[in-house]
Amino acid sequence: MNIHIINGPNLNLLGTRETEIYGGRTFEDYLDELRQKFPGLHLTYFQSNIEGELITEIQKAGFNHDGIILNAGAYTHTSIGIADAIKAVTTPVIEVHISNTFSRETFRHQSFLSPVAAGVIIGFGLKGYQLAIESLTP
Amino acid sequence: MNIHIINGPNLNLLGTRETEIYGGRTFEDYLDELRQKFPGLHLTYFQSNIEGELITEIQKAGFNHDGIILNAGAYTHTSIGIADAIKAVTTPVIEVHISNTFSRETFRHQSFLSPVAAGVIIGFGLKGYQLAIESLTP
Amino acid sequence: MNIHIINGPNLNLLGTRETEIYGGRTFEDYLDELRQKFPGLHLTYFQSNIEGELITEIQKAGFNHDGIILNAGAYTHTSIGIADAIKAVTTPVIEVHISNTFSRETFRHQSFLSPVAAGVIIGFGLKGYQLAIESLTP
Amino acid sequence: MNIHIINGPNLNLLGTRETEIYGGRTFEDYLDELRQKFPGLHLTYFQSNIEGELITEIQKAGFNHDGIILNAGAYTHTSIGIADAIKAVTTPVIEVHISNTFSRETFRHQSFLSPVAAGVIIGFGLKGYQLAIESLTP
Amino acid sequence: MNIHIINGPNLNLLGTRETEIYGGRTFEDYLDELRQKFPGLHLTYFQSNIEGELITEIQKAGFNHDGIILNAGAYTHTSIGIADAIKAVTTPVIEVHISNTFSRETFRHQSFLSPVAAGVIIGFGLKGYQLAIESLTP
Amino acid sequence: MNIHIINGPNLNLLGTRETEIYGGRTFEDYLDELRQKFPGLHLTYFQSNIEGELITEIQKAGFNHDGIILNAGAYTHTSIGIADAIKAVTTPVIEVHISNTFSRETFRHQSFLSPVAAGVIIGFGLKGYQLAIESLTP
Amino acid sequence: MNIHIINGPNLNLLGTRETEIYGGRTFEDYLDELRQKFPGLHLTYFQSNIEGELITEIQKAGFNHDGIILNAGAYTHTSIGIADAIKAVTTPVIEVHISNTFSRETFRHQSFLSPVAAGVIIGFGLKGYQLAIESLTP
Amino acid sequence: MNIHIINGPNLNLLGTRETEIYGGRTFEDYLDELRQKFPGLHLTYFQSNIEGELITEIQKAGFNHDGIILNAGAYTHTSIGIADAIKAVTTPVIEVHISNTFSRETFRHQSFLSPVAAGVIIGFGLKGYQLAIESLTP
Amino acid sequence: MNIHIINGPNLNLLGTRETEIYGGRTFEDYLDELRQKFPGLHLTYFQSNIEGELITEIQKAGFNHDGIILNAGAYTHTSIGIADAIKAVTTPVIEVHISNTFSRETFRHQSFLSPVAAGVIIGFGLKGYQLAIESLTP
Amino acid sequence: MNIHIINGPNLNLLGTRETEIYGGRTFEDYLDELRQKFPGLHLTYFQSNIEGELITEIQKAGFNHDGIILNAGAYTHTSIGIADAIKAVTTPVIEVHISNTFSRETFRHQSFLSPVAAGVIIGFGLKGYQLAIESLTP
Amino acid sequence: MNIHIINGPNLNLLGTRETEIYGGRTFEDYLDELRQKFPGLHLTYFQSNIEGELITEIQKAGFNHDGIILNAGAYTHTSIGIADAIKAVTTPVIEVHISNTFSRETFRHQSFLSPVAAGVIIGFGLKGYQLAIESLTP
Amino acid sequence: MNIHIINGPNLNLLGTRETEIYGGRTFEDYLDELRQKFPGLHLTYFQSNIEGELITEIQKAGFNHDGIILNAGAYTHTSIGIADAIKAVTTPVIEVHISNTFSRETFRHQSFLSPVAAGVIIGFGLKGYQLAIESLTP
Repeated sequence: MNIHIINGPNLNLLGTRETEIYGGRTFEDYLDELRQKFPGLHLTYFQSNIEGELITEIQKAGFNHDGIILNAGAYTHTSIGIADAIKAVTTPVIEVHISNTFSRETFRHQSFLSPVAAGVIIGFGLKGYQLAIESLTP
Repeated sequence: MNIHIINGPNLNLLGTRETEIYGGRTFEDYLDELRQKFPGLHLTYFQSNIEGELITEIQKAGFNHDGIILNAGAYTHTSIGIADAIKAVTTPVIEVHISNTFSRETFRHQSFLSPVAAGVIIGFGLKGYQLAIESLTP
Repeated sequence: MNIHIINGPNLNLLGTRETEIYGGRTFEDYLDELRQKFPGLHLTYFQSNIEGELITEIQKAGFNHDGIILNAGAYTHTSIGIADAIKAVTTPVIEVHISNTFSRETFRHQSFLSPVAAGVIIGFGLKGYQLAIESLTP
Repeated sequence: MNIHIINGPNLNLLGTRETEIYGGRTFEDYLDELRQKFPGLHLTYFQSNIEGELITEIQKAGFNHDGIILNAGAYTHTSIGIADAIKAVTTPVIEVHISNTFSRETFRHQSFLSPVAAGVIIGFGLKGYQLAIESLTP
Repeated sequence: MNIHIINGPNLNLLGTRETEIYGGRTFEDYLDELRQKFPGLHLTYFQSNIEGELITEIQKAGFNHDGIILNAGAYTHTSIGIADAIKAVTTPVIEVHISNTFSRETFRHQSFLSPVAAGVIIGFGLKGYQLAIESLTP
Repeated sequence: MNIHIINGPNLNLLGTRETEIYGGRTFEDYLDELRQKFPGLHLTYFQSNIEGELITEIQKAGFNHDGIILNAGAYTHTSIGIADAIKAVTTPVIEVHISNTFSRETFRHQSFLSPVAAGVIIGFGLKGYQLAIESLTP
Repeated sequence: MNIHIINGPNLNLLGTRETEIYGGRTFEDYLDELRQKFPGLHLTYFQSNIEGELITEIQKAGFNHDGIILNAGAYTHTSIGIADAIKAVTTPVIEVHISNTFSRETFRHQSFLSPVAAGVIIGFGLKGYQLAIESLTP
Repeated sequence: MNIHIINGPNLNLLGTRETEIYGGRTFEDYLDELRQKFPGLHLTYFQSNIEGELITEIQKAGFNHDGIILNAGAYTHTSIGIADAIKAVTTPVIEVHISNTFSRETFRHQSFLSPVAAGVIIGFGLKGYQLAIESLTP
Repeated sequence: MNIHIINGPNLNLLGTRETEIYGGRTFEDYLDELRQKFPGLHLTYFQSNIEGELITEIQKAGFNHDGIILNAGAYTHTSIGIADAIKAVTTPVIEVHISNTFSRETFRHQSFLSPVAAGVIIGFGLKGYQLAIESLTP
Repeated sequence: MNIHIINGPNLNLLGTRETEIYGGRTFEDYLDELRQKFPGLHLTYFQSNIEGELITEIQKAGFNHDGIILNAGAYTHTSIGIADAIKAVTTPVIEVHISNTFSRETFRHQSFLSPVAAGVIIGFGLKGYQLAIESLTP
Repeated sequence: MNIHIINGPNLNLLGTRETEIYGGRTFEDYLDELRQKFPGLHLTYFQSNIEGELITEIQKAGFNHDGIILNAGAYTHTSIGIADAIKAVTTPVIEVHISNTFSRETFRHQSFLSPVAAGVIIGFGLKGYQLAIESLTP
Repeated sequence: MNIHIINGPNLNLLGTRETEIYGGRTFEDYLDELRQKFPGLHLTYFQSNIEGELITEIQKAGFNHDGIILNAGAYTHTSIGIADAIKAVTTPVIEVHISNTFSRETFRHQSFLSPVAAGVIIGFGLKGYQLAIESLTP
């Protein structure tokens, strides 16, 4: 089973940035743990700060994976283009957020991606990625 | 580990009501499956169509369980009282929705509960309850 | 032919409450008149001030009656749960209001029930119930 | 008893236009049925696509009839002038809509006419006109 | 000096309609008084309930009069077409309202005509027409 | 003099819930103090988490008491039904809130009850109930 | 006949300020012309940049004049206090604006004063004051 | 091939009205040019200032032409009735605007017609009609 | 104990202005009664129609009194400056309104002062000032 | 004559993505057809999923082409930066959309580009590009 | 070079009021420092809590200074009158705020003054005044 | 002292684009002037049209500079991602705009960056960059 994780802007700073919100662990470190937890899965990873590169990555992965796990960060709230990419591909896309976006600023309450996502997981910290993987496995 | 599942209005009709949205299986049937999948957990269940009974149930369960999984149904979008109950108790409350509320009517896009929930899981069908349980287990 | 009339909050005070708006007659008194006017029909009646009990009543009556006539009173404007119950059942539900809700406060202009009702009758006083019955008969 | 029915724009196409919404029967045909059903009434009919002609017709009929039944079609949602005419006359005006306007586009949810109508009947198909007549008879 | 008065929908009912708001005098009667008060002016008058006829009348009068006095009634609040006609002609157009539109329903507070009118006179009863004439005379 | 105090949802948790906002004292304890402070009054008390039971209680107490003191908690901001009950009864109803609702979340700034209350007292802690009693005494 | 003219903030700069909007003439100069035009009237004048002084002036003049002509300038759009003063006094208050406020910034389209003014005159330049005087004379 | 061009209010003034926006040429003159450019087409033309006449014309032309080109002028932004007529007929209707409505007043940014038009062409001056014809030809 | 009462615009007209809303008694008269009712308190009083003078008065009294009772009248709904003054001082400020502002115009429903007031008392007539004093005493 | 076509995000998937909306043909295939249809023109093409690359491309092409045809896809509704680029260059930019954006989600109804475009063509499928070319040729 | 500094309401409390936001230094103290830093400038200073006095001061200083530095405090967000004064004078007016108004309450995000200010400096503490002076010097 | 200047989309066209708004000078030319004016500073410069590259640049410069001066151009009004980057780094970020964004289109009045910027400087032309540097120096 092939699952691709895509992280959006500023998530490359995980472990550094606002650790009271996002925790003090890098994503690469967490990714190792995930791979150990799910030894039967093929887990790949991509990160970009550029909206258009996220669109392109969804297009590339969206026809030949069993699932995409997407944390589009700030673009979640402003990008119709990423939403269009999700609709355009055939792979189910799970939307994940580390923090509880609904208890933060109002502009983080709206997601252009949620209506087209196969499922939404919010506020469980890094564990949200694990739950997303479990949602894709039988 | 004690986990209490609380379902709100019209969820007693699961398996009967709008099966194209909610599926054709009763919740009791699914609950059996959950108990088999998590034999080490003590899973209890409550359903009511009455907002105030849901508040009372959260109050009763909210100081002596390891987790509450709450699908408040339609009250999700209108009940400040349930949100206040979640804030008042010490047990973490996971918000679950079977359907993708963000791809349905606009009035289902807002949740009074999400800002005070410990986590939110939306759109995975009945499997969302399983993911919620997993989110509560180490 | 079985028709069930369901009245919501404060309608138990008909004949007492704001008689310049709702008139000076009790609903029970009017119900007698209706039964005399439609001798061939089986007319039953339920009233509750509790939103969840109205939901439960719609669920109970909604699979074995020829029509439900619903005046949900104040819940008309705030209850997504009652709207969900109407959608969940197979019996057609006619929405009735005694007063002209559109000539009163702004918050009475919106109805969560109208989009899912089989028909809407507003502003005819108690006669609206009679019109609703006539709408259900051939 | 003299009752005047006034239909607004595009209702001259009844039986032709969007038959899945409005049905496949012409209004003239239905009018015959109404006249047979209410032999003691004097039923007259007027249709126009022009807002100002509807205003003029309400003014003309509004002082010498026992009731006006008005389906102002699309002008329902935009015409303050028709509402002013209804307020200006002494005959009660019943607002009728064939389809359930509340389950259609948002701009059809608002009616300038409802606040000044003697009663509102929505969503019963052509039968709404019959109910309106019955609302005017003792 | 040629001044043309144009009245819109329902103003043909002046003296009959809602006399507590508009007074009990017909416009024709008042027009006689105006002509006596301003013997040196050539005062003409047009009334229609039809928006498009008001547009046409403004077009016709708008290049060969010294002033147009326009009470567009209900169309004031909804007609972009009349506003466009006012902009299209060279004669100054004075907007008049008999009642104080700002102390009535919210939808009467907005005027599409005011931004393009040469001046606005509101709430002086029929005397507003006289003030409008005076505004046009040196 | 008979005064009835009605508390709404989650106020049964007073002394437990969010003590930084609501204080650490139970309402029963405070009620004893009130009865000692006003020995000449007959003070009764009711609490429910269920909106419809609050409506019913207002109806029951609303014709035979000298005053009702109502803290409807979260229902303050969403219940048209409770507002309707207040309007329906003859006893004056004083609205009380323990915390300053205007310095909390936006959705707590609106009250459906205030427009129909005989008076409103907000932000004085439990002392607000005492002030409400004093407002009812000469 | 005693008529009092009250001008609000920045109107002391008439003749200096934004002459393309307000013209190049001082108000004092224009006042002389008005007094000559209406020799039988007693015309007095007050100007202040201070909202509260305008309130006080309306209170002082509002019980012993035949009319007040008020151009409250920028306070028109923000002052509930001036509106309250107008309602509190018995003298009719005519609202005047020199420029067409409806063709300027959006925040100039709303007037707190218009709903309580005896009449409103907008956009006639300084001549608006003359029209206001004429509106007060028989 | 039969194509019918329908122009709405104030477009009869083309060549006269606001020539900096709409240009200095009459529509009749331009129509001649169109007929020469498309000699194989049968081009007919209708103009009215009356909304209801535009509705009637669409109804008349809408079942026996290969295309309708509609510039509804100001009614574009307010007429649900014209939109209903477009939906009611079988001929495709192309919406054309001479000026760029999106760079003008906000109220010209919304079109009730665009959602039901077969295509929309905006801002090309009179050439927009030519483009509309080309869109209808293979 | 030193308590300072501050009244805002138009409250100097109490007893004269809109007596159906505000009652027929002057504030000075009522102040005498208050002083008799609370002989142990030192009650001082200030009134101004000028927003900035109210700000200055709060600044002056706000560091050396045990309480300020503020009825800012119309400035309640528009003055951020008074709210800032309340926040800047150390004396608790109680907000009082004589009439029920929530049952009046919409613009009276919002208060800039309530979020920073120590408590809010609305709708009890002049008795509200007495309740405010009692709120400040043990 | 040099004309540059610029396509935005997800338009590289034309022929694959949501074929019921966008059709089953690739853009490259269509481009060949366009070049054959307009043999005298020099047609160039650029596509990117990255907003900033679209801005750069408009800057590069915007001073040395006779026309730019821009379908900015999802960025149409969110990009002020692309609108700024259009304003910054001297080449006219024609906005094209394949589908009828006005009959889709509300967030597709607003375009930041339309107010600064030289013309807008919406809803004609791929033929819209051909019409745009024709709009640029004499 | 003559530069006039004008401070609005509550800024007389600098050094006392909310020192965590505004710092612990009086403005007079800071003014001394500024005068030492810019020995070649003539720096004058005015403060008032009264909106109208700020208007008058801008009028007085606005024709004979090289620059005005204005911190209108709370009036920034509500005063059209001060904005009108800025437009009326010829001296450039620099808007300064000590705190970052955009990170505070929503009602502080809007400024009526910014659109007419010669420049805006926000959030630099007292140093903002120094930057404003530098902006006025070559 | 190391200060990094970051310019966003279309600012590479400075000196070419809309010179009536942005002036006729290139930024490189101005940068030379700045370096001469502040010889003791190490001034570096970056420009990109790509939102994500601006995010990356802020991340790179944000932990090892004494200040960042950011003119994010059009992204100012739409980019939550850039705001998140500003919050994520430790270097203070000064927001600068050349033109007065508040006197331009409404969509330029909102900045996602201002709430998290260390200070905001708007409308001083290129001199704003100099003021920003001065704000960072003691």
